[in-house]
Amino acid sequence: MKLNGSQIEQWGLFEATLDGPSDGNPTREVELSARFECGDHILEPEGFYDGDGLYRVRLMPDRQGEWRFTTRSNVAELDGRTGTFTCVAPSAGNHGPVYVQDGRSFAYADGTPHWSVGTTCYAWIHQSEELQEQTLETLRSAPFNKMRMCVFPKHFPYNENEPSLHPYDVDANGQRDFRRPNPAFFRHLERRVLDLQRLDIEADIIIFHPYDWWGYATMSADENRRYVRYLVARLAAFRNVWWSMANEYDFMLKNIPMELWDELFQTVERCDPAGHLRSIHQALQDYDYTKPWVTHASIQKWDIHQTKAWIRDYGKPVVNDEPEYEGDIPHAWGNISARELVHRFWYIFANGAYAGHGETYLHPEDVLWWAKGGVLHGESVPRIAFLRRIMEEGPAGGLTPMEDAWFWERMAAGMNGAYRLIYFGAHQPRLWSEGMPEDVPYQVDVIDPWEMMITPLEGTFQGKQTLELPGKPNLALRIRPVG
Amino acid sequence: MKLNGSQIEQWGLFEATLDGPSDGNPTREVELSARFECGDHILEPEGFYDGDGLYRVRLMPDRQGEWRFTTRSNVAELDGRTGTFTCVAPSAGNHGPVYVQDGRSFAYADGTPHWSVGTTCYAWIHQSEELQEQTLETLRSAPFNKMRMCVFPKHFPYNENEPSLHPYDVDANGQRDFRRPNPAFFRHLERRVLDLQRLDIEADIIIFHPYDWWGYATMSADENRRYVRYLVARLAAFRNVWWSMANEYDFMLKNIPMELWDELFQTVERCDPAGHLRSIHQALQDYDYTKPWVTHASIQKWDIHQTKAWIRDYGKPVVNDEPEYEGDIPHAWGNISARELVHRFWYIFANGAYAGHGETYLHPEDVLWWAKGGVLHGESVPRIAFLRRIMEEGPAGGLTPMEDAWFWERMAAGMNGAYRLIYFGAHQPRLWSEGMPEDVPYQVDVIDPWEMMITPLEGTFQGKQTLELPGKPNLALRIRPVG
Repeated sequence: MKLNGSQIEQWGLFEATLDGPSDGNPTREVELSARFECGDHILEPEGFYDGDGLYRVRLMPDRQGEWRFTTRSNVAELDGRTGTFTCVAPSAGNHGPVYVQDGRSFAYADGTPHWSVGTTCYAWIHQSEELQEQTLETLRSAPFNKMRMCVFPKHFPYNENEPSLHPYDVDANGQRDFRRPNPAFFRHLERRVLDLQRLDIEADIIIFHPYDWWGYATMSADENRRYVRYLVARLAAFRNVWWSMANEYDFMLKNIPMELWDELFQTVERCDPAGHLRSIHQALQDYDYTKPWVTHASIQKWDIHQTKAWIRDYGKPVVNDEPEYEGDIPHAWGNISARELVHRFWYIFANGAYAGHGETYLHPEDVLWWAKGGVLHGESVPRIAFLRRIMEEGPAGGLTPMEDAWFWERMAAGMNGAYRLIYFGAHQPRLWSEGMPEDVPYQVDVIDPWEMMITPLEGTFQGKQTLELPGKPNLALRIRPVG
Repeated sequence: MKLNGSQIEQWGLFEATLDGPSDGNPTREVELSARFECGDHILEPEGFYDGDGLYRVRLMPDRQGEWRFTTRSNVAELDGRTGTFTCVAPSAGNHGPVYVQDGRSFAYADGTPHWSVGTTCYAWIHQSEELQEQTLETLRSAPFNKMRMCVFPKHFPYNENEPSLHPYDVDANGQRDFRRPNPAFFRHLERRVLDLQRLDIEADIIIFHPYDWWGYATMSADENRRYVRYLVARLAAFRNVWWSMANEYDFMLKNIPMELWDELFQTVERCDPAGHLRSIHQALQDYDYTKPWVTHASIQKWDIHQTKAWIRDYGKPVVNDEPEYEGDIPHAWGNISARELVHRFWYIFANGAYAGHGETYLHPEDVLWWAKGGVLHGESVPRIAFLRRIMEEGPAGGLTPMEDAWFWERMAAGMNGAYRLIYFGAHQPRLWSEGMPEDVPYQVDVIDPWEMMITPLEGTFQGKQTLELPGKPNLALRIRPVG
């Protein structure tokens, strides 16, 4: 056990490895945690059994300085172990985990704005090694900074293949043993989370989902509780983790009633010293995102006209992770056109929320990006990259819906100080004079989101002006203060 | 007075003209009605003063045979006058007025289906004679069979011109005298209603509206009551009249509270022997279309995703008269693209309702079709004509939403027996197997509403089939039973 003297960068991963018993079922029988102190700042993560008699306790140190820790366990050889490390400045590109800022936008711990541009490959870590590497290669040049991904394998249309590694193995009788997590699987999961971290992609870890034939969706309450603690013990020290309690939790209510969802949410909150973002996805029955343990609303909604209402009702950042996917499968949630998805991205963002991408084109070997990753076939991705550039050029803190909801109800319009982004969607005014700042000179760009063209209007404006526009649909106006 | 022996076709206009007093204010002081009998069938319209000492009582006879009538008045020379006429078979093209059939579709009195495809020229009868004639010429080759039009002139953006004829004139003191209707104006209105009738266009007569600077929107309750009775006395005998109590009634609630709207509705119902269709348009506050005096829901709604809910909630035919207009003015209700309006027409119709057209392109002399008529500049009209052809080729009685609202909530799909119309909108499935009839062989057409192309799939199908589709958005499927 190397416990002393190491240097860890801020928001890096510190891991103490301890030798302990390997007999019996350590995950069930051995309790392990550690108390980390840096000055008067104390964090107390749980540890976990990683197989072969090895126990680990991890921490993402959130401040620079000298840290020391003491372990606590019901097993003597794991109890009272101490160590120290030095937390140093983060390396370039390490901005820390993403948190909610000002109740409505996202920022990394160092204050850098985070513009959420997610995608979805639910079961990518359950595919062949070759396909997983291809997915990472695709992500390298894609605009996404968040990946929705399941821990458990998925059984669903276009998801017929068995995973090579299972989170829980079958026992000698062929029964899946939910009392013994498979360390090899979880190490693989961690490796993929780190791969995403290197690409500046947040891993939006989906803890439960209903699309299952192995029994993960019907584990007992006790098994669910232990699984959640084990997962948090393993992953909370990775700075790019977000917690998604479930995909379509409401299809699992028979096995996990609302009280248990709330309890599991609070377990994550209590056990995760990093306080990573926490949300949950619905199918038909909305979760109440105003509950205090929810950090943001992660929704799957096709009727994007409600965007302003969600922002108002939840009072938290809204990420519409699935405003339907670009594709051509028979399922309505997976066959909108690229133009429509780009439209929805702009509509959602200009209204002050964030959209998520997914792609579901029929494929001869059923390799659909939304489930398995691979390569992208659609036309929305370069346009989403273009929108991300527009986001990043905008003011930190993102947008809030323009006031006068009645006037703006048919169009998407967000503001931040004198900055405004108006997205017209199906509307095509040839003359326009609304939404301009009153007190500062400003410039105006006409943006074509599909053609990825930015056309500045000539000159500088002040006060209410009547602008001449091209009179075609799906354009946006960007209004920026001058100087 | 020629009161005897004339021949009137069924649903034609019978008019008895009587000489009476011209002194004082006949409209206020003279009461006149008539009791018409055809066998045991009795109708009792009110008459009206038409100026120059002439009084008229009109009736649209709704059955063939011998009719006789007796007038009733508080003026001796108008009281107890009798006459007869013969009601004969309707001429070709005269199908009678449009009524609601089976609680959910429209049909002419002779049973011919009426597929509502309306347009809007609110103030067209208040424009120059030349422009009115041009409007009629445009309508001659347009696909519309209903025209939303106001009685009162309109003061609104792009509506700055004074009308040449006023429904009520100013008196010697320059005050508009709401006690004396201007017969010349109402004769002009009637002439235009007849012009539309000759083009097989229903005149959707908007009785009140708020966009006014002459005082029509702020008449007293008594003036409103008398105006409504006068209008009904003049127009109810025209078979192509629909009554629209108001455009945006809720902007007039200060002057016409809800109780008075209800009373005026009931006045129209009571005084109109023909029982023409009755509805009202809202702006922000929905009228309760389940009230018994409302025959159908005439709404102005941009969020067309609610279409199925309106049909369900109102239990009456739904006409979305203003799902926003094709155009390029700054106002959000008047600047959607032609593609979007065509999309909305298909979406609304395939869900079992009807859409209305309007056009609002900027014009150097402010001649916008939606207000003044003239010529059409947009691209939606030929596509609307194409959709009307699809409607007319469909089964009488129109469509009801496909069952399983959850499955169909994202797409528009209506059925009538084995006939189905599925409109995919932004969805572009390449394979499709839902919504097919189970019990009869059927044919399938793939329809491109914008290109106005109908492509039959080869062969005849039976039972659930997986169809191969082009995988592009904004297509429709038409499924028709064979034989």
